[in-house]
Amino acid sequence: MAKAIVSIIMGSSSDTQVLKETEIILERFSVPFEKRVLSAHRSPEDLVEYVKKAQDKGTKIIIAGAGGAAALAGVVAAHTVLPVIGIPMETNSLKGLDSLLSTVQMPSGVPVATMAVGKAGAKNAAILTLQILAITDKKLQRKLAAYKKELVDTVRIQNKKFKNKK
Amino acid sequence: MAKAIVSIIMGSSSDTQVLKETEIILERFSVPFEKRVLSAHRSPEDLVEYVKKAQDKGTKIIIAGAGGAAALAGVVAAHTVLPVIGIPMETNSLKGLDSLLSTVQMPSGVPVATMAVGKAGAKNAAILTLQILAITDKKLQRKLAAYKKELVDTVRIQNKKFKNKK
Amino acid sequence: MAKAIVSIIMGSSSDTQVLKETEIILERFSVPFEKRVLSAHRSPEDLVEYVKKAQDKGTKIIIAGAGGAAALAGVVAAHTVLPVIGIPMETNSLKGLDSLLSTVQMPSGVPVATMAVGKAGAKNAAILTLQILAITDKKLQRKLAAYKKELVDTVRIQNKKFKNKK
Amino acid sequence: MAKAIVSIIMGSSSDTQVLKETEIILERFSVPFEKRVLSAHRSPEDLVEYVKKAQDKGTKIIIAGAGGAAALAGVVAAHTVLPVIGIPMETNSLKGLDSLLSTVQMPSGVPVATMAVGKAGAKNAAILTLQILAITDKKLQRKLAAYKKELVDTVRIQNKKFKNKK
Amino acid sequence: MAKAIVSIIMGSSSDTQVLKETEIILERFSVPFEKRVLSAHRSPEDLVEYVKKAQDKGTKIIIAGAGGAAALAGVVAAHTVLPVIGIPMETNSLKGLDSLLSTVQMPSGVPVATMAVGKAGAKNAAILTLQILAITDKKLQRKLAAYKKELVDTVRIQNKKFKNKK
Amino acid sequence: MAKAIVSIIMGSSSDTQVLKETEIILERFSVPFEKRVLSAHRSPEDLVEYVKKAQDKGTKIIIAGAGGAAALAGVVAAHTVLPVIGIPMETNSLKGLDSLLSTVQMPSGVPVATMAVGKAGAKNAAILTLQILAITDKKLQRKLAAYKKELVDTVRIQNKKFKNKK
Amino acid sequence: MAKAIVSIIMGSSSDTQVLKETEIILERFSVPFEKRVLSAHRSPEDLVEYVKKAQDKGTKIIIAGAGGAAALAGVVAAHTVLPVIGIPMETNSLKGLDSLLSTVQMPSGVPVATMAVGKAGAKNAAILTLQILAITDKKLQRKLAAYKKELVDTVRIQNKKFKNKK
Amino acid sequence: MAKAIVSIIMGSSSDTQVLKETEIILERFSVPFEKRVLSAHRSPEDLVEYVKKAQDKGTKIIIAGAGGAAALAGVVAAHTVLPVIGIPMETNSLKGLDSLLSTVQMPSGVPVATMAVGKAGAKNAAILTLQILAITDKKLQRKLAAYKKELVDTVRIQNKKFKNKK
Repeated sequence: MAKAIVSIIMGSSSDTQVLKETEIILERFSVPFEKRVLSAHRSPEDLVEYVKKAQDKGTKIIIAGAGGAAALAGVVAAHTVLPVIGIPMETNSLKGLDSLLSTVQMPSGVPVATMAVGKAGAKNAAILTLQILAITDKKLQRKLAAYKKELVDTVRIQNKKFKNKK
Repeated sequence: MAKAIVSIIMGSSSDTQVLKETEIILERFSVPFEKRVLSAHRSPEDLVEYVKKAQDKGTKIIIAGAGGAAALAGVVAAHTVLPVIGIPMETNSLKGLDSLLSTVQMPSGVPVATMAVGKAGAKNAAILTLQILAITDKKLQRKLAAYKKELVDTVRIQNKKFKNKK
Repeated sequence: MAKAIVSIIMGSSSDTQVLKETEIILERFSVPFEKRVLSAHRSPEDLVEYVKKAQDKGTKIIIAGAGGAAALAGVVAAHTVLPVIGIPMETNSLKGLDSLLSTVQMPSGVPVATMAVGKAGAKNAAILTLQILAITDKKLQRKLAAYKKELVDTVRIQNKKFKNKK
Repeated sequence: MAKAIVSIIMGSSSDTQVLKETEIILERFSVPFEKRVLSAHRSPEDLVEYVKKAQDKGTKIIIAGAGGAAALAGVVAAHTVLPVIGIPMETNSLKGLDSLLSTVQMPSGVPVATMAVGKAGAKNAAILTLQILAITDKKLQRKLAAYKKELVDTVRIQNKKFKNKK
Repeated sequence: MAKAIVSIIMGSSSDTQVLKETEIILERFSVPFEKRVLSAHRSPEDLVEYVKKAQDKGTKIIIAGAGGAAALAGVVAAHTVLPVIGIPMETNSLKGLDSLLSTVQMPSGVPVATMAVGKAGAKNAAILTLQILAITDKKLQRKLAAYKKELVDTVRIQNKKFKNKK
Repeated sequence: MAKAIVSIIMGSSSDTQVLKETEIILERFSVPFEKRVLSAHRSPEDLVEYVKKAQDKGTKIIIAGAGGAAALAGVVAAHTVLPVIGIPMETNSLKGLDSLLSTVQMPSGVPVATMAVGKAGAKNAAILTLQILAITDKKLQRKLAAYKKELVDTVRIQNKKFKNKK
Repeated sequence: MAKAIVSIIMGSSSDTQVLKETEIILERFSVPFEKRVLSAHRSPEDLVEYVKKAQDKGTKIIIAGAGGAAALAGVVAAHTVLPVIGIPMETNSLKGLDSLLSTVQMPSGVPVATMAVGKAGAKNAAILTLQILAITDKKLQRKLAAYKKELVDTVRIQNKKFKNKK
Repeated sequence: MAKAIVSIIMGSSSDTQVLKETEIILERFSVPFEKRVLSAHRSPEDLVEYVKKAQDKGTKIIIAGAGGAAALAGVVAAHTVLPVIGIPMETNSLKGLDSLLSTVQMPSGVPVATMAVGKAGAKNAAILTLQILAITDKKLQRKLAAYKKELVDTVRIQNKKFKNKK
């Protein structure tokens, strides 16, 4: 497999299912990635060590998904100048509001590109990754334009069903 | 001035003050940008026309700040495959919770890289822009590393003051 | 079937079930309508094209239901001077608070007549439509008065059951 | 003065300032209106009496603004088949979230067309009123189209200022 | 059966299950009550007529349970000088926050004694009723003191189980 | 002065200003009361001692106002079978949402009659007190009816001003 | 069994399941504890009596878990100078936001060391207890360091699974 | 000055004013402490280095105050087995709800003893510190008992003022 240029980090293995959405998109667009469980709270040194080596290893973008007091994406962003995309996980009690606020409300100087709570966010983390990589990759730009066209077509097909029913 | 590669769009001229934070950072790092007032609700056709031409004009990243039912960043993202960074503006009544949720909770397929509410978010939109551009620009990477070092130094200076007081 | 004077737009085909409530009422009152899946984020040009033709086609009122960062109703309102009624869909994570705030918090100049979150809102979008059409339609006014009487009767029947039980 | 076809009801005289926004727009478009302070909680019988006579008097649309446990618009809607537009007032403690939820979350059968919290909502109540009246008034439709053009122009002028500054 | 001195009003027959908690307590303490479905939005005139006759009929306290834009308790309070106890019902989308705020945030002059959301609130509406009636009823005071003792005993029995397990 | 039959307890002397609203109404209706600063968290034994003696001393109703983790009203209710009315104080950070939820969400068996956040709530605590006392006091009932009439008149006077202006 | 040095108090026996998480950790680290059901609202005198004797009995730390208007931990803290750890229970309607705010928002002078809502909070109450006891217990410090190492190892094992899959 | 046994860390020098409350209490009880500005996001390595040395240096408890996406206390807790006390700072836009949720909602295994938002929380962080240290310090226990007595006395003095006024 090609060398990973995207890194997917999840705060807990229980997030695997949601982050599968990210993987599916990256695989479809042939973007090589690697994934890790690394927790800002439970394995902080492994996390920092991993993040610090990322840039030299060739990683271009880091995607981080975590729930609750979701420090993961912010801590990753603290240790790298690579773009960091954060996915707030849905939580039982506070329904992901905790994950969202602790991912997005970053202080000046250390941004986290925050996505929607849950699966939509996980999928969009991959799309944003593609959009960033496409800035300097005309071929990927065309693929994204085609993907956008697909979104339109999906909607159009649903519309046809409506019209035929009448 | 060099051709703009970043576009800053605000939903209302009352957002100028907050988005000044974005400009200051971009200027400091010599990233050419242009700014526009374009509203998803009040001037939607001008907005769409502007966004659609962006890519061909050489725009690489679009930053969009809006408040309330903040559709701006999402609508921009709907019309381009460029990365879109959203800044939720603080609002009087609901304190920016409305702006945040309407910017970040995007559906699958159309991401908005959402920043914190208000000035910190505006500043971080610029930093994220630099991080994205730096992926293929070693010099900018070094500048960002230096900037990160500055953040550390600022904190260190504050610490020295504490110690001297004792 | 008669030419549609009401248009029901949903942001995703997953909203069909909820918007069925709108259809049932419109059908009962013999108001011709058409429905479409059109997304502000996934098929924005189709949406705008559809909305712009609406008035000339004879559409009098547009009903728009969407969830999450629910830009749909607002974008429709941006492109027409027809009255736009918005229905915020219930969402998994934030329980529809995101849909509600992004539908209702519209800026000056571009109103969306916002209904309750979910099925009650979908039903009421139809009732509001009837109320608006009834302004210049005495017959419909009488039908609505009869409908209001029905609401009372339903409650009265429930009361009788209580009394009989005792 | 012409006979009022729109009625503006406020729950408290302290809402006068905010509802002034509604008046300014209606006056500009020469829509005759009358305004009342009538409280669902403090003067409920006067309110009901007023609402019940509204339709026969020639009122076509009722606008109701209230704060806190804002029952006003809902109670008005309970007593009429005219379209009712609700404006949630900003409140000190809960910042208008109470007003918003108690105005918008209406049960099946009794809609309130809810606007944004505060001044933007007050202004938009007037615009929505105009949009409803314009359904059967070509001249008003043209005026609204012109007003929409004005919104665009305002934004364009702001843009020019930006460009000239550079 | 004795003449009702307490009236239980629910906004919808779907609230029957929750308000059963109120009935059970009142029955146990032999407080005669009657219950009605009467909606502030769907059957407002029946509601007002019922409330206005309440005092003359011998009603001493009115308990009102409703959900969503829960105007019921407030409207009852608007039409009587009897004490009104409000129970906010749990709702699907906003989890009862809407019901709570629209019940409790009453304006100066028209109080609603608001209970907790859902079943605990329904039970407590009955207890508060008993406490109010007990002010002038020594026997009921003693019964309430005994009930309070029961609460303690229930907890003590649970504690014994813990100790025995060890 | 007559023996107090109502007790006003505040959690902190900083609540004096808000609870003044309660006093003004009670004084106007000649209901003898006493007030105390007693904190569930800072002076819990004084509080419990005071509450336990209340009934024997002739207290009929206890009003308790507190902010933040507002345990005051609940703890009072835990130690008495007298009706307890709770007033959630506005707070700086969470705007009284904390006070409201910790006052109203009482468990089964121990109700607190919760009022609106802040001054309106403080005033209404007095009105509810009067309504409870009026159950067995025809004269007070008439006074409350007159007070209700006053509320109407105040609104009517405001309306006249509107009409005269036109 | 050794004399208890930690006390676990729950507001209701329905909290047993959640607080089992606390017990499991304390048992594993051989910290002797006792548990009680004691309610600030239903059995307040038993609670106060128990808390007041705690220190003399040798209790060093009190853990208190409660839901809704969760006064338990605060009332415990009011009656002791021992450290009090609070666990907000998840609730049906407001999802634990009520429990959290009424546990954490304590006034100056009376702290409650508040944990996360639900099971994670219950487990962490035990860990914090161990951390406090470890301040003067080198052996326990080493055990906690080993536990922290375990957290890391768990994460590492999950990572290996990922790598092997590829 | 004696060797610090408590460490106060703030995420930004703008938190100095609030954390002054912590210092005042610690100074009054003669607990030696040191304070640092160290940010989880801006100076993460300095933070981790500082935290890791804390235990060997003789630090017994760490107090951490931060706002927004407040990762500070959690990251400190990730790197030490010392008890960590977190103070959520009030924020402009979301009023400290963001700080609170990102401090308190920690995952299993890594607790943060969370205090109230803002100044009350800062003061209580010091009191909790004293309570923890007092477990093995009889003299400090007595001082805390005296402090608790002071809280009572302060309230009693306020009560006397009330009585004298009458």
